[in-house]
Amino acid sequence: MPELRKDPILGRWVIIASERSKRPGGYHSDKRAAFTRPGKCPFCEGHEKMTPPEVFALRNKGSKPDGPGWRVRVVPNKYPALKLGASVGISSRGLYSSLPGHGVHEVLIETTDHKKEADSQTISQIEDWIGVLQARSQVLSRDSGLRYTLVFKNKGRYAGASLSHPHHQIISTPIVPKRVKEELKGAADYFRSAKSCVFCDIIREEEKRGQRVIGRNRDFIAFCPYASRFPFEIWIVPRLHSLHFHDPRIAKMNGSLARILKSALNGLKTVLDGPEYNYIVHVAPSRIPKDELGITTKSYHWHIELFPRLVRTAGFEWGTGFYINPTSPEDAAGYLREAAGSRPV
Amino acid sequence: MPELRKDPILGRWVIIASERSKRPGGYHSDKRAAFTRPGKCPFCEGHEKMTPPEVFALRNKGSKPDGPGWRVRVVPNKYPALKLGASVGISSRGLYSSLPGHGVHEVLIETTDHKKEADSQTISQIEDWIGVLQARSQVLSRDSGLRYTLVFKNKGRYAGASLSHPHHQIISTPIVPKRVKEELKGAADYFRSAKSCVFCDIIREEEKRGQRVIGRNRDFIAFCPYASRFPFEIWIVPRLHSLHFHDPRIAKMNGSLARILKSALNGLKTVLDGPEYNYIVHVAPSRIPKDELGITTKSYHWHIELFPRLVRTAGFEWGTGFYINPTSPEDAAGYLREAAGSRPV
Repeated sequence: MPELRKDPILGRWVIIASERSKRPGGYHSDKRAAFTRPGKCPFCEGHEKMTPPEVFALRNKGSKPDGPGWRVRVVPNKYPALKLGASVGISSRGLYSSLPGHGVHEVLIETTDHKKEADSQTISQIEDWIGVLQARSQVLSRDSGLRYTLVFKNKGRYAGASLSHPHHQIISTPIVPKRVKEELKGAADYFRSAKSCVFCDIIREEEKRGQRVIGRNRDFIAFCPYASRFPFEIWIVPRLHSLHFHDPRIAKMNGSLARILKSALNGLKTVLDGPEYNYIVHVAPSRIPKDELGITTKSYHWHIELFPRLVRTAGFEWGTGFYINPTSPEDAAGYLREAAGSRPV
Repeated sequence: MPELRKDPILGRWVIIASERSKRPGGYHSDKRAAFTRPGKCPFCEGHEKMTPPEVFALRNKGSKPDGPGWRVRVVPNKYPALKLGASVGISSRGLYSSLPGHGVHEVLIETTDHKKEADSQTISQIEDWIGVLQARSQVLSRDSGLRYTLVFKNKGRYAGASLSHPHHQIISTPIVPKRVKEELKGAADYFRSAKSCVFCDIIREEEKRGQRVIGRNRDFIAFCPYASRFPFEIWIVPRLHSLHFHDPRIAKMNGSLARILKSALNGLKTVLDGPEYNYIVHVAPSRIPKDELGITTKSYHWHIELFPRLVRTAGFEWGTGFYINPTSPEDAAGYLREAAGSRPV
């Protein structure tokens, strides 16, 4: 069972993942490991037995679980960072506190095609897996032992992916992570003073200024944020004020989301020659915590944060939480609009 | 002039570094750029004109500034993230705030030897550059426009170094960075409830338990922290309760610091086959801020945080601030002690 440990100074939690446990030599061999080829890929059709049994799939009529004939497939992570177990309390010993690593770690396989990332999938394929991600988030958010569900994508080895077949990950944690609390609290503080949602206000401001906007449709806007940590960082924000990616009102807009996401990924591909990237769906906790954060349904707004992995975070960033970004978001947005053949708003 | 921009939600600052400004193609060429060879290295002896004029050096008698004959040399960074300029206030426009990127960014060249890192330098060489880092920190901490001075080392390209010749960096910022404030506040909160310094208590606890300790001498202790974010993370903490690396009482212990640092780096080299790494000297701000943090000279304690770059931080870490560490600190400490031929405390 993995163990969660709390840093006694920062209150930051760390997962000591015994299931992934490694001897020092394991880190060297990682450097050499080839990315999976189709013939050996556990996510390819016909290799369903190479993964743990599926928890959900969109399947062709008549096909059987854990066999071929699927379009989207969700399986438990074979090397989970967290595992379902007894959800017990914090145990403390002197300065130090820990918690069993109770949680869920799943993988969503986007397509049977080993090579086709979202930038070249059809809109209806993307809509399909967006819908499945929402359905899994919904199910996991009902589990009383889980407080937060994170959906994210790592594309490429340097972005942390260990398999190249297009996939997303879903992790549910028994605590609300510190970084999430900070964002919730920042938005709640803003709400208290401005009486409005900071994300709604950012949408308004970005549309007014136009120079950082890279895409927009009826339901979503995509832009390079004012204080971009990374070159070519992109946020995708729904116009509808909503706490959760799995909000049923959002599910009606999955076509719009698929289009704006595909277009953003295509922009990065064109401008940056197919970069590796991460994106993370930032959402509210499953249940609004009743604590000092002061968050309400009015103060937070789910969104996607996407960044290509172009620069290495180094001592300065780790030491300060301060980022050095060599490309301004205005310049980045200009390149991305140019690639899309569009004009500023 | 670089620009500091504040994130309207998190209050996190970002440096938009126009001096380092890059077109998209610049990121591709980075992938291909070879690490500097001795013949073309601006940090090698005889190439002093390739750097901006030195701000400090330990020199052989009779040698001239910006010529050969030095042992340790400090120069301004040629592509600074921050630059000395008018230290003016925050300007706000709607939701967004910025500040001119006033600050200092220097490079300390540890040795004339292009290849010899601290793990194979002599103790007296290491003492020399530790002393110079302290002297520069001291000078910069007296500048009233600068609030925080960070000393750090990036070793290897994936750890963010752009030159391979052994060097450290020093950055002074006009604000106290968020990550630093969090650590100061965490330590101050602990002090208020426990009436003791959390770092002093951690030293005591680690010595008592022994299993995570990897090295110790009269003045310093080195251990893998309980909630290690990264495999083989190491903290080096002075036994003397002190706020600053440049504390004159610490300068008397530079021999002890050189020995424990060299030994930790040698341990990593043996166990992990010469990994890339970062370390960061965590210190208090130049002047204790009079604000809500409640920090006092009793509540904080400078120290070094060191981590080899073995795992890639991915979507999960960026999305939550939650780390997944596949090697427990107890195991890591065991391997490092074994490499050093030492026993648990």
